[in-house]
Amino acid sequence: MIKSMAEDKTGEWIAANCLPDCLFIRPSGNPFKAAEFVTFFGGDVEITEKNLIKIQKLDVGADMAYATASESAKFTYKGTPNDDPSFTVSTVWKKVGGAWKLAHGHRSTATGNDMSSWDGCV
Amino acid sequence: MIKSMAEDKTGEWIAANCLPDCLFIRPSGNPFKAAEFVTFFGGDVEITEKNLIKIQKLDVGADMAYATASESAKFTYKGTPNDDPSFTVSTVWKKVGGAWKLAHGHRSTATGNDMSSWDGCV
Repeated sequence: MIKSMAEDKTGEWIAANCLPDCLFIRPSGNPFKAAEFVTFFGGDVEITEKNLIKIQKLDVGADMAYATASESAKFTYKGTPNDDPSFTVSTVWKKVGGAWKLAHGHRSTATGNDMSSWDGCV
Repeated sequence: MIKSMAEDKTGEWIAANCLPDCLFIRPSGNPFKAAEFVTFFGGDVEITEKNLIKIQKLDVGADMAYATASESAKFTYKGTPNDDPSFTVSTVWKKVGGAWKLAHGHRSTATGNDMSSWDGCV
């Protein structure tokens, strides 16, 4: 489930598996409607690589769950290449009609991200 | 509940109301043990002002809940003043023994944060 989201380069998996009111909080704190990622990624931003490094934490409740994962991504913005070797994505999931749907996401910057900061935390 | 957390300048409220394994993801994506905020805020960082601007979203499940809020903070780092007029904090809560406890937090940068980005999102 989460592996698929981490590897979604076009936003199509997210659009198909998020709730209609799902927001994705960008590193700046500005929200983005998750269902609109397809348009976002299909415009100036082209993701060329996106990988799950590690699910750092996962906790599943009765009808809600949350996870925090380290991911990496390479993308071009208006043709200029960017490389984010690691960043953190927190997600919240809701069980709707027996299926887990993405309810909320929040992504960190890659600047200053240090994978060794997880040592002793999880 | 969330108002108290937003206004916690010392980390004491968070320490008293978080789960032992609660992590707080900093803007860089590096995690911090929430219970250790008391030490963090009592060291080089002194928060002089901290306010809740708005709870943008709140969804309460059977035993888990999540919220996203806009907050502001003024603090000094080794005596140098900083002003974060707005940023976004996503939190996950778990009901343990009848009480809601902080399970997870994720804070955005203040740089680039634009309150008008919420228009039409919530």
